[in-house]
Order: sequence, then structure tokens, then C-alpha cells
Amino acid sequence: MKKVRVFAPASIANLGCGFDIMGLALDEVGDILEMTAEEGDGITITNLTDVPLPDDIEENVITPVIRKFLEMTGQKAKIDVRVCQKIYPGSGIGSSAASSAAAAYGMNELFDCPLSDEEMVVCAMEGENLASGGYHADNAAPALLGGIILIRGYEPLDIIQLPIPGNFYCTVVHPKIMVSTKEARKILPKAVPMHDAISQWGNVGGLIAGLYSGNIGLVGRAMRDSVAEPYRKQFIPGFDELREKILASGSMAMNISGSGPSVFSLSDKRETAHRAGEIMKEHFDSRGIKCEVYVVKVTNKGAKLLAQ
Amino acid sequence: MKKVRVFAPASIANLGCGFDIMGLALDEVGDILEMTAEEGDGITITNLTDVPLPDDIEENVITPVIRKFLEMTGQKAKIDVRVCQKIYPGSGIGSSAASSAAAAYGMNELFDCPLSDEEMVVCAMEGENLASGGYHADNAAPALLGGIILIRGYEPLDIIQLPIPGNFYCTVVHPKIMVSTKEARKILPKAVPMHDAISQWGNVGGLIAGLYSGNIGLVGRAMRDSVAEPYRKQFIPGFDELREKILASGSMAMNISGSGPSVFSLSDKRETAHRAGEIMKEHFDSRGIKCEVYVVKVTNKGAKLLAQ
Repeated sequence: MKKVRVFAPASIANLGCGFDIMGLALDEVGDILEMTAEEGDGITITNLTDVPLPDDIEENVITPVIRKFLEMTGQKAKIDVRVCQKIYPGSGIGSSAASSAAAAYGMNELFDCPLSDEEMVVCAMEGENLASGGYHADNAAPALLGGIILIRGYEPLDIIQLPIPGNFYCTVVHPKIMVSTKEARKILPKAVPMHDAISQWGNVGGLIAGLYSGNIGLVGRAMRDSVAEPYRKQFIPGFDELREKILASGSMAMNISGSGPSVFSLSDKRETAHRAGEIMKEHFDSRGIKCEVYVVKVTNKGAKLLAQ
Repeated sequence: MKKVRVFAPASIANLGCGFDIMGLALDEVGDILEMTAEEGDGITITNLTDVPLPDDIEENVITPVIRKFLEMTGQKAKIDVRVCQKIYPGSGIGSSAASSAAAAYGMNELFDCPLSDEEMVVCAMEGENLASGGYHADNAAPALLGGIILIRGYEPLDIIQLPIPGNFYCTVVHPKIMVSTKEARKILPKAVPMHDAISQWGNVGGLIAGLYSGNIGLVGRAMRDSVAEPYRKQFIPGFDELREKILASGSMAMNISGSGPSVFSLSDKRETAHRAGEIMKEHFDSRGIKCEVYVVKVTNKGAKLLAQ
């Protein structure tokens, strides 16, 4: 029997303009799984947290990730998973991706690392497909690889790790409102008006140029979403007002994290990032909405082994 | 009376995926204007080339550029322009932008450079608007500033000069087929299917990441257009077949330049770029279509003063 304890971080998908193609790992928040492999067959998942997870393993994102790994590597084993720490589902900070990434990373470690980074992402995407009905890597790739990730394309999967400017702080607030990723996808139109599409890819270009050149001002200007935000911000009470307050306090951008309801802001100073967190907390507190706030310096870590 | 002689280069707009937001200057091909300013009022334009230009100055892109410059700077003068060298209109390598950029640059020089780079682009965009019915800077900005340009956004104009990898060769063929920019815009749909839009901004991200990291392979993979090319390639006989031949010969990408009919390929070796030029020439010759071929090493020059 072999045993590992693995961590995979929460993540922010889209980063404003990069709908379905960009994501960022929040290294200090995430899921922890203990996984064992032994001779035999079958999967068991035990939830040791107080976060509600489905009892049926077929509904847990971990299951299709494990199956994909076994299929890709031709291995056979009995896998037991204990969920030791879990981000709340429906938070918009990549709860399903953290579990999926941890499962993919853990399986790879259990079997002496037969898969490449991109192959692990392919495994993790099976979990994302179960969670949201689509093969997306914009949370799964940063949760596995860390840092800020661009998915240039899916056919074939082309993943690019982007540079992180020296002072790059994210503030994330998770208001306790339920928004299902499936619903948040359904609300989007099937086509994008040409003018908005052009704005979006201009901003994606600017965001990537800003990251490479360390121009945080440009990153902030470019972090605008003409495509999903106009539809999704309705789920977040007082979204426009909150952004006004956040930008007025010195942060460079504020956007919806993934499909929401979490919201994140970007700052180049730790104090500004903490100030943004206070404003976010006040905003939701005053509306009677409970929330959690995280302030994270963005770095290049991703999924990793923990001491057992 | 003050006199200048100015050059502004041809340019390739869109660069595959960067529809309306990216362009590249072709330093070795372009327009040359001689401009004089003296006391008085009015504009005259004399065409010294054998390229047909409109007799009515109101139809020449140079006129609105000069007027915009005078309006922005509060100057008054009689301006005479002599067109000494001219790219064929309708070529798809930024003929109107080269004239517009040369006019904006020349005016700025005649009046001791009161305008910034971005303000000169604003002037040059007046010429683009006359030519194609829209304020686009994807040819005008590279024609003025040189190199590879990203226009992050238009409101306000946010222009970013991108780095150029060490070995970066463009081959351009201008087949003598008439395609009007206005027609080539009209044929495009008003909205982009979400899936294609996502592919496009993934590729824009990849292209910019490739330019910054000097990864020419990534630049080539990213130079794909899901938005305009499917509609515009019908104007270019045997487009798909030509691309197959060009890619098989070692070039990294082939796309339509701007709205066509010119086509360009990208290579990291001078010999490959010349080979692409030969294939392009054979392709159009065998179809009875006359063409001109240029092979250009991409550099950072743009509009400039010439000795008189």
C-alpha cells in the first residue's frame, strides 16, 4: 500500500478578460486529500470535513479524475481518498478544480509520476466536466501548476505559464450566496457582439503584455470583461458600487472570480490589498451576507505533496 | 516655408488572431511624401507616382489627417503634399495607413513635433476612417511607430509596442486582385459564436506570450484566425492549398494580411521566408494572377524623415 497527502490550491478563473482561458492560483487556500493505492479495484471517498459533499462517489469530481488516470496509465488499483480540507463548493474560487487537481497530482505521485503536467491537467479536467458540464482548464491548470496560466487552446491542450510581476496581491471575497457554475454558464449568450469580442481580445493582449513587462497599471487597465460580467454581476449584490469603492481605495481592478459569487481585486501593495478586503467585508456585512476574505501574494506554487 | 520628406511603411493588420487590435510594420516597403507648410490656408496634393489616386482631395486619406492635425494643434497653414512613392490601394498591406501615417508624421515634423506618438495615431486614424468607414489603428499605429503593435483599447487609445523575437521574417505576397476594405468588413458577421471568440482570445494571449518569451513556435501556433479568415479567404484563390504548401515548406504560419488580398507568412529563417515567397509566386502565377512578393526582417522602425 502506498499513501500520499496532497494539497491543491484554490484558483481564480477568467481574470476579467480571459474568459475560459486564464486562471491564477491562490496558494494559501485549498483542498487537502490523503490518498492510498493498494492491490484490487474500486474507489472509496471519505469526507473528514464539515463541508457537505455528495455521498454517491459518482457525483464527486474526484472519481472521474482517478478513473481517467488509471485509463491513461493502464494501471489497476483500489484507491481510497480521505478529504481532509475542502473549499466550499459554489464559491467561485475553483472548489471542484482544487479537488480534481489534488486527485490528479496525488494519483501521479502514488504511481511514480508517469504523467506530464499537461496530462495531469487532462485528468483534472474530467472533474471539471462533471462539475460544470464542460472540459475547462482555467481553474484546473493553475490549481495543478500554480501561478498565472494561459490556456492558448484546447485542441490540443496548450498551456503557458505566465510571469508574475514582483508585487502582485489578490484580495478575494467569498460571499455566502449560492451560484451554480452550470447556471452561471447557461445565462451567457451563445454569441458575442463583434465590438465586445474585439474589446475582449484587446484586453487579453494587454493583460499578457502587462504581466510580461511587469506593468501592473496595464494589467489593471486590461482586466475588464465585456463578455461574461454584464450577465453575471446580477448575482452579486451591489457589484458596481463595490467596484467603485475598491478602485477608489487604490486597487487596480476588481472582477468576478470564475462564475462567481466570489469577487477579487488586484493591488500592487499589501496594504491596499488588505484595505480592499475590509471594504469587501463591510459591503457584504451591511447587506446581511456572510463572507470570507483572503489576501494572497500571487506566487508560482501549485499542487504539492504534504508531510503525512 | 518649411519642407520635409517623410516615409511611412506598409503594414500587416490582424496578424491572424488579432483582428482590429494588432499590426506589424514592413519597414522596407512604404509611401514617401514631400510636404511643405507656408502661410495661408488650404491643401493641395500632387501625385507624382503612376499609382491611380483620387483627383478630389476630399477623397484622399491625406486630407482629413492634415485637417485633424491643424485642429488638434490650433495651427493654420497652407499645406502642399507631393506623393512620391505609393503602395497600391486595395493591397491589404496598409496603403491608406501608410499615407495617413506619413501625413501625420510629416505634419508633426513641419510644426516642431507638438503631438505625442498616440496623438499622431489619432490623426492618422482620420485617414483610415475615410478609407474604410471606421477608426482603426491596427495599420496606422505600426506604420507610425514601427514594429509589432497591440492596441489594447480605443477608449481611450492604449497602444503597446511589443517585443520582436530575434529572427522574425515576414513574407508578403500581394496578388493583383481587387478587394475593397469596406466590402471585406461588410462580409463579416455582427456577432462571433462564443466558442470561436474564446479560441480567438486564447490565440491572442498565446501570440503575445510568444513574442515576449521569444518562442516563435508558440507565435506560429497562435497565429490562427477563427473570426475573419473563414469569411475572407474566399477572395483569395486556393488559399487553403497555398497555406498547406507554405507550412509544409517550414514556415510557421500563413494568414491574410488585413482584409486581403495580400497574404503573409512567418518564418524564423531568411531562407524559409524566401522559399515561401517562391511558393506564393508560383501559386498565383499558375492561376494567371500577377503578384508582388516582399521578404522583410521585422524590426522596430516606423515613419521617419528622409534626406531631401
